[in-house]
Amino acid sequence: MTTFRDALTDVPGLRVGHATRAGDGFLTGTTVVLAPEGGAVTAVDVRGGGPGTRETDALDPRNLVQRIEAVTLTGGSAFGLDAASGVVAWLEEQGRGVPVGGPGQVVPVVPAACLFDLGRGGDWRARPDAATGRAAVEAAAATELGSPVEEGNVGAGTGARVGGLKGGVGTASAVLDSGITVGALVVANAVGSPVDLSTGALYGDFFAGRGPVAYPSPEAHEAARRRLAEVDVYGSSPLAAIPGATPGTSGTSGTSGTSGMPDTPATSSAPGTSATPAAPATPPLNTTLAVVATDADLTRSQAQKVAGTAHDGIARAVRPVHLLNDGDTVFALATGARPLDPTDPLALNEILAAGADLVTRAIVRAVRAAESVRTPAGAHLAYSDLYGAQAAPPRS
Amino acid sequence: MTTFRDALTDVPGLRVGHATRAGDGFLTGTTVVLAPEGGAVTAVDVRGGGPGTRETDALDPRNLVQRIEAVTLTGGSAFGLDAASGVVAWLEEQGRGVPVGGPGQVVPVVPAACLFDLGRGGDWRARPDAATGRAAVEAAAATELGSPVEEGNVGAGTGARVGGLKGGVGTASAVLDSGITVGALVVANAVGSPVDLSTGALYGDFFAGRGPVAYPSPEAHEAARRRLAEVDVYGSSPLAAIPGATPGTSGTSGTSGTSGMPDTPATSSAPGTSATPAAPATPPLNTTLAVVATDADLTRSQAQKVAGTAHDGIARAVRPVHLLNDGDTVFALATGARPLDPTDPLALNEILAAGADLVTRAIVRAVRAAESVRTPAGAHLAYSDLYGAQAAPPRS
Repeated sequence: MTTFRDALTDVPGLRVGHATRAGDGFLTGTTVVLAPEGGAVTAVDVRGGGPGTRETDALDPRNLVQRIEAVTLTGGSAFGLDAASGVVAWLEEQGRGVPVGGPGQVVPVVPAACLFDLGRGGDWRARPDAATGRAAVEAAAATELGSPVEEGNVGAGTGARVGGLKGGVGTASAVLDSGITVGALVVANAVGSPVDLSTGALYGDFFAGRGPVAYPSPEAHEAARRRLAEVDVYGSSPLAAIPGATPGTSGTSGTSGTSGMPDTPATSSAPGTSATPAAPATPPLNTTLAVVATDADLTRSQAQKVAGTAHDGIARAVRPVHLLNDGDTVFALATGARPLDPTDPLALNEILAAGADLVTRAIVRAVRAAESVRTPAGAHLAYSDLYGAQAAPPRS
Repeated sequence: MTTFRDALTDVPGLRVGHATRAGDGFLTGTTVVLAPEGGAVTAVDVRGGGPGTRETDALDPRNLVQRIEAVTLTGGSAFGLDAASGVVAWLEEQGRGVPVGGPGQVVPVVPAACLFDLGRGGDWRARPDAATGRAAVEAAAATELGSPVEEGNVGAGTGARVGGLKGGVGTASAVLDSGITVGALVVANAVGSPVDLSTGALYGDFFAGRGPVAYPSPEAHEAARRRLAEVDVYGSSPLAAIPGATPGTSGTSGTSGTSGMPDTPATSSAPGTSATPAAPATPPLNTTLAVVATDADLTRSQAQKVAGTAHDGIARAVRPVHLLNDGDTVFALATGARPLDPTDPLALNEILAAGADLVTRAIVRAVRAAESVRTPAGAHLAYSDLYGAQAAPPRS
């Protein structure tokens, strides 16, 4: 019996590797999910309005390639997609990919999605490249099956930000009543906020199903907001840059996206952050990337449905989401070890529901695991830093 | 200055009409959203796994028809789509539709989506038909512009159920900072639950942005659960029929979809409900239908993006959602009166964010406005009935 890690690697056969590039202007990296040799059924659903992807058309269930050896998540925006080239090269060396000729003649199809983190380490040109991708897949291959997955400021989450806070990598898994395992890995880097701005609670915690949420004290919340406003490298919280709804003539319309936000842009930079050469003047591009995986035997169309409903898990943890400047993309992998109950036409439902729930929980974990970082581009404050113990429940 | 109704009809030019069929075996109906003469730019996004629709392919932005005169939401599952025929006939009489020949020669394209409510009134064959659709569009046409919209057990929401509770119609609107109005109308009829089953709070309220949520007392929640289990016409709560995730070796995995659910199937029927000839033996089919509308000048592709992100609003208010036995469908209408800011490539974002938020709030309102109903098929209990004053904040 393997140890339950509450991680994507609880899905038998899957490995995860991070390559982290921090310092010397870098604050970025790449994460690779490596399937068992022979690959996994893989699908994708892109819901963000500003996606950056590679080899996603090959995943359309109508198209040729049946199984995928590895998926790449990477920082560096469109430039960072080069990381997938390093994964492709490594897979070719292993003889893994779509066989198209004689021995060793394979074409590795490596779907990839990027997130925007350009300039956050201080150097606009410091991005993941093919070597970063190779390092990530080699790190994955070097792990034992069932290894824990590092969370927070690692791999593709190294430079992630979410709603003005430091983002990162998070993971979670569950074994369903059927015995099927479902896992999720996310890189939380959204325009929208993971925090209920009127209280400081994490939206995703509302879906934990464990009774009333423990809200931060109003004093802690106010202090966190003040600190965030002071160091915000973008001059105002990214969410505040999205005009919120104004209630109409009603005092109880609850649609305002700006309620509880700091009303004024930051008027000063934190010590050491006055030089912000790389801070963008426009609302930043962002993206939440996720991989949902299962050991169930799914068709490619079923996997695509899993990828689609997993976006519900992002919606519950981040608000607003799927905007024009989000590139939200979810990959779904199915290793095929466990058949769905053939007598139940709704057997897929438990995987759909669990996939969304695990994405929500993985985002909560990513936000809690993230750590504050100070770079030449400014300070990126973490939820755990701002809200303290409230932010750090015991690790399961 | 018109009165703010916090309703879809706050979008200038839009009218809403309900036709309600209750009694004599009926518990169903039809709701029509009527655009101004000349129509509105209209799009659709179908995310449920069991949709029932008509004329949705015409809404693909690549296809011919540019503007739509009316959208029909209806009970009666696939049979109820006949309601749209009554709307088509009425529009033809008015000379409204796509001009295809000489004077009066029009083809009204009436997109429609149905929800499953068969048998809930006691008679499996008591469904909306063309006459019901005509009654709904005539009711819409008879209203003054800017009229309030009736919520709860009306129109397409007459027979709606959501997560084992009585569902119904809800609506909400907001005027954005830009002056653009966005409104939503939903018919809440989902497999998943609008209620956090561990507390009795409504998920959607977590996104109201007005400070900590007032949870029902544990005693009130327990009493509500017991009452619901006793009268549940399906033998167990619909959500309980979906296997939840089992936490692995961890005691803190929060993915269980069954936590807090009544553990035992109902062992008795409520008085007067012992005859349940129409209660389905399998988990019910369901659907959340929504219309999001705005007076902004959107392209058809932009409207489609609005319809897509509106599903995030369903995800925040109902969990799980978009399952194989949900037919979740969102229409988006844009009347075109107000241009987006041409200097801001992200101008659409505020509409995307507001549309999702309004759908969440409309679902909360639908669940609160719904009233308990007893039919020959059983008792359909409402949240307001189970949770009392907690369920009924002052109407704005």
